[in-house]
Amino acid sequence: MHAVVIHAPKDLRIDTLPDAPAPGPGQVRVKIAAGGICGSDLHYYHHGGFGVVRIQEPMALGHEIAGTVDAIGAGVSHLAIGARIAVSPSLPCRACVHCRAGMRNQCLDMRFYGSAMRMPHVQGGFRQSLTVEAEQAIPIPDHLSMGEAAMAEPLAVCLHAANRAGPLMGKRVLVTGAGPIGALCILVAKLGGASDIVVTDIADGTLAMAAKLGATRTVNVRGGTEGLADLKADKGLVDVLFEASGNQAAVIAALDVMKPGGVLVQLGLGGEMTLPMNTIVAKELQIRGTFRFDPEFALAVELMGKGLIDVKPLITATLPYASAVEAFELASDRSKSMKVQLAF
Amino acid sequence: MHAVVIHAPKDLRIDTLPDAPAPGPGQVRVKIAAGGICGSDLHYYHHGGFGVVRIQEPMALGHEIAGTVDAIGAGVSHLAIGARIAVSPSLPCRACVHCRAGMRNQCLDMRFYGSAMRMPHVQGGFRQSLTVEAEQAIPIPDHLSMGEAAMAEPLAVCLHAANRAGPLMGKRVLVTGAGPIGALCILVAKLGGASDIVVTDIADGTLAMAAKLGATRTVNVRGGTEGLADLKADKGLVDVLFEASGNQAAVIAALDVMKPGGVLVQLGLGGEMTLPMNTIVAKELQIRGTFRFDPEFALAVELMGKGLIDVKPLITATLPYASAVEAFELASDRSKSMKVQLAF
Amino acid sequence: MHAVVIHAPKDLRIDTLPDAPAPGPGQVRVKIAAGGICGSDLHYYHHGGFGVVRIQEPMALGHEIAGTVDAIGAGVSHLAIGARIAVSPSLPCRACVHCRAGMRNQCLDMRFYGSAMRMPHVQGGFRQSLTVEAEQAIPIPDHLSMGEAAMAEPLAVCLHAANRAGPLMGKRVLVTGAGPIGALCILVAKLGGASDIVVTDIADGTLAMAAKLGATRTVNVRGGTEGLADLKADKGLVDVLFEASGNQAAVIAALDVMKPGGVLVQLGLGGEMTLPMNTIVAKELQIRGTFRFDPEFALAVELMGKGLIDVKPLITATLPYASAVEAFELASDRSKSMKVQLAF
Amino acid sequence: MHAVVIHAPKDLRIDTLPDAPAPGPGQVRVKIAAGGICGSDLHYYHHGGFGVVRIQEPMALGHEIAGTVDAIGAGVSHLAIGARIAVSPSLPCRACVHCRAGMRNQCLDMRFYGSAMRMPHVQGGFRQSLTVEAEQAIPIPDHLSMGEAAMAEPLAVCLHAANRAGPLMGKRVLVTGAGPIGALCILVAKLGGASDIVVTDIADGTLAMAAKLGATRTVNVRGGTEGLADLKADKGLVDVLFEASGNQAAVIAALDVMKPGGVLVQLGLGGEMTLPMNTIVAKELQIRGTFRFDPEFALAVELMGKGLIDVKPLITATLPYASAVEAFELASDRSKSMKVQLAF
Repeated sequence: MHAVVIHAPKDLRIDTLPDAPAPGPGQVRVKIAAGGICGSDLHYYHHGGFGVVRIQEPMALGHEIAGTVDAIGAGVSHLAIGARIAVSPSLPCRACVHCRAGMRNQCLDMRFYGSAMRMPHVQGGFRQSLTVEAEQAIPIPDHLSMGEAAMAEPLAVCLHAANRAGPLMGKRVLVTGAGPIGALCILVAKLGGASDIVVTDIADGTLAMAAKLGATRTVNVRGGTEGLADLKADKGLVDVLFEASGNQAAVIAALDVMKPGGVLVQLGLGGEMTLPMNTIVAKELQIRGTFRFDPEFALAVELMGKGLIDVKPLITATLPYASAVEAFELASDRSKSMKVQLAF
Repeated sequence: MHAVVIHAPKDLRIDTLPDAPAPGPGQVRVKIAAGGICGSDLHYYHHGGFGVVRIQEPMALGHEIAGTVDAIGAGVSHLAIGARIAVSPSLPCRACVHCRAGMRNQCLDMRFYGSAMRMPHVQGGFRQSLTVEAEQAIPIPDHLSMGEAAMAEPLAVCLHAANRAGPLMGKRVLVTGAGPIGALCILVAKLGGASDIVVTDIADGTLAMAAKLGATRTVNVRGGTEGLADLKADKGLVDVLFEASGNQAAVIAALDVMKPGGVLVQLGLGGEMTLPMNTIVAKELQIRGTFRFDPEFALAVELMGKGLIDVKPLITATLPYASAVEAFELASDRSKSMKVQLAF
Repeated sequence: MHAVVIHAPKDLRIDTLPDAPAPGPGQVRVKIAAGGICGSDLHYYHHGGFGVVRIQEPMALGHEIAGTVDAIGAGVSHLAIGARIAVSPSLPCRACVHCRAGMRNQCLDMRFYGSAMRMPHVQGGFRQSLTVEAEQAIPIPDHLSMGEAAMAEPLAVCLHAANRAGPLMGKRVLVTGAGPIGALCILVAKLGGASDIVVTDIADGTLAMAAKLGATRTVNVRGGTEGLADLKADKGLVDVLFEASGNQAAVIAALDVMKPGGVLVQLGLGGEMTLPMNTIVAKELQIRGTFRFDPEFALAVELMGKGLIDVKPLITATLPYASAVEAFELASDRSKSMKVQLAF
Repeated sequence: MHAVVIHAPKDLRIDTLPDAPAPGPGQVRVKIAAGGICGSDLHYYHHGGFGVVRIQEPMALGHEIAGTVDAIGAGVSHLAIGARIAVSPSLPCRACVHCRAGMRNQCLDMRFYGSAMRMPHVQGGFRQSLTVEAEQAIPIPDHLSMGEAAMAEPLAVCLHAANRAGPLMGKRVLVTGAGPIGALCILVAKLGGASDIVVTDIADGTLAMAAKLGATRTVNVRGGTEGLADLKADKGLVDVLFEASGNQAAVIAALDVMKPGGVLVQLGLGGEMTLPMNTIVAKELQIRGTFRFDPEFALAVELMGKGLIDVKPLITATLPYASAVEAFELASDRSKSMKVQLAF
């Protein structure tokens, strides 16, 4: 079986691995069909990791995957061979204090595909075949493509972010950064009934896409944030911020347009930011981190299946897995790509 | 009438002002008896302001005040001459968008005693006589002293912070910084049923006071935060942080001991802080600013009146107002003072 | 000036009243153009009141109104003569404990048009001219009709109900009773991103309208609630109920399909209901009353103006005010009418 | 081994059962020392069940138990032989939709001691020896008695109810019904910092106990609820109700004194109640069911261990298990008993 394996920064190889094992009780084996390249995959590719996380052994990448069930273990009744599924990359332990408290995304013994956070690393899903727990396999309707199914993971991230934000209906939402995560936040804010969706980025092309997806106003902040000035009225007019830029200047500008009591949801594992605490205090702003997802994965599949979220415009290219290096380079070019996927 | 007026940094004078006007409809006149010196008073005294706020004209200081009603305007039925009252320094407009939404502490046209945030400044309450709206006058029971009544304001700040934090019962609470605000947060956490109250500071004397007030554990972090290391277990064990130090190192250390999803309530108008956003994201922490109070002022009086909160140990000195400079210097010395009050 | 005045049950007259006074400071005078007949108007018409509320003097009906500003008082700067506006029927006192707490819809001294809750009654808005506080006048965009503007009030009721319910995105929503309020709840649930909107009623015609408005499933419960049986799985699959039928059997049936922890929002001032408390306890269900609205009135205008909510299909008839009795009879016939409006 | 087994209403026997099995992996065996008699035990004793639940085979009663570990299975490291523990009667499945969502008390496959809700029944803990999962065994400090440890279960019920209620600090709390659950709610409300704790019951002796536990006001409602009349001011002054009487008249009286938006937490599996929905709607009250507990069990042990909750006054009698019938009769007499426990 082939897999897309990172060995060192810029050293991405198509390796041959042992076949995926026959599924044990409660498991199924999946023939992977599509895999989306995520920002963290790109961090492993370019830098060998992010923050304090570094690859210490070769690791198959990939956690946005979908495919077809080709073998079924004992005791699995809700899936048949041939079932088309989205695969959740997340397998919490069910037993730790956070799992018991319903915060399974904070599991102390989490296994998450393609992550070097623990040693040995959890190998990823960019491979031809994978054996998973049945709970990870979410059936998709016939009209969803494998590529769309592979978008369930980043969509779940954004649905979780929205759950962290609270109700969106009738709210003015700001999205800073309109890459794949920011773009999905636009779709989610639109679904949630936001009355205004303001989007900032530094690339006109990205902002044009944002407008197509539902942004009611786009602002290029490359040269400054004056385009947001009218939103400072009454101490600030923005109810909810989805921060998907990881950019300190974007956050600082956002603080000035947030309504008193407003909520800034921080997505993405950025580095340090220097923030004016007096603004946060005086306006009683709330900064909330958001990390991965749990029930939102199945919800993402459901919402795409029902046509309430359409991710197709975000998939800008699909390359064969053998061209993984080319695909990773393409995905790294924001001027050309939103989401790049691999076909297996 | 005499008042304690700041003219410039370190230029604090006892000025003679016109007498307080006779109360109009819905107003009462108060003979001020006690006034507590707050951190913001000290900022005006030492630096002429804080953040971007600077005194631009002479301003009477003081917003922690109590006294006795000595004249009553038309239409005021719930107060009699001689009524002993705590005076709320906060007068929102009732009409702006934030007042209508129940966030009166965020009023766009707020009048708050002894604040240079608007021009002309709102003159403060360190004066012998003051005419206020009846809504600002909260009667106190006989067994409360005027000094205790003047503590209603900072206590209200901490009660509002607790409302921002959510339920405290059975929670592990960390208080960083045990000055007057931190100390009041200890009292509030104890009242709220916190199961552990961990307090950090850099002064042993202050921590000794914290222990007397109800801290279940005190940690001197002058030389480092190793004393908190056991609280990092399971990603962190602290549910709620009341951050009253304004110290970046304290906040960063706290991030490592916060439980996933935990709430950091930031009190006090500090400056910039450089924070590791990846910790906030990965643990889904929440930072919430808190600013002043509204219904919590009357609640503060009620809780002191019922003996559920005892602020007496915090009042470390009371000086005649004529000795205001001496009192401000004393209040500036953390090794000698918790709360210093003026007697009028 | 003419007004539509109830004198006794079934005694609805077109009376001549004194002209609306010239607007005082902060007021505007409105030439009323459209007025919608609400369920409570019908209760006054048929029964002289509801619950313990009874008309004790002649009272103009109507609180769903819109019109054009034709005179402006001193100090009103945001409205011009000729401005087309929706008129909020709600004027809270700003001073009582509930107003100060941001629950202005619970004002102790509320003035609400066309309500016999206080004596003398607050006269209603079914009249040719009305002088209102400027805060009650919400400008509408040109493309909204006066009839749509008059729908702001019942839409606001449903937006407030949604605020009481919490987030709707991705939730399974049940609406019991698809009259005007239930129908607006469907529109709101759809805007809020509900993944399923199940609607029950006892009239096929009403359910057909519900399906057009966005119900994903309609169930006629005239003969029983078996059509909901599959929703009992896993203790119940419904997250949120908007109860707009006032029917005890509907509520009891709903209890069985609610998910543990689910929220039942009760709209409409019904009478007594006999409920199985053991189901509420064992499944930890939540029943939440909802009453009127406050900021949701302006939001209703905004959402209609932006095309996010389209109420036009609900307006089934518009009659001249002189035909008020005919209009009230028509509005009372659920088989023929959703919302009936008067033109002035 | 002996156990206290219900065979039919009023047919409670001391049966000889097979010894508890040696603990398997992850399990421990407990020598039971104390068991408290709960209201549901009394329902089985007097009526053979409650609601639609009926005993269909002999069943050992009891779910409020504590004891000493006398054998340890493989892989259990945090418990030693001789460990004194409180035993949680609750064992959720960890896998169902509600367990995954953090609502383990709503588990679809719950095993709860001494419950006839499923067939075969889950046998109870009134027995000399019991083998449990290690997760069910919560160590207690030396200074807690076995009787106090056995109170962890009903205390956990009340802590869960308080979590359902939201913050209690500075709130006016009403407790209707001052039996064991109501009495524990008083202790919890006091710990949570309630500023007033009003308690109603129909027995003066019970109310005297309530006053000792922390009630700030007790009202005997045997002859009517006039004693609560002053709490109707401003639409109602009570923030939170803990309803532990199961009495419809108590709930109806409470509705009139609840503050707009107030929360009624309903404890206990009662029958039907006929409620005035118009009051719930007009005041936007919230009724919330509460059922059992999950993390609150360990919290109950912690709070008792730290001296923050003292349940000793509630244990009014302890009888040897051989006198179980006598103990059940005594527990049924509210005039003589609060909590009756069995010693094993």
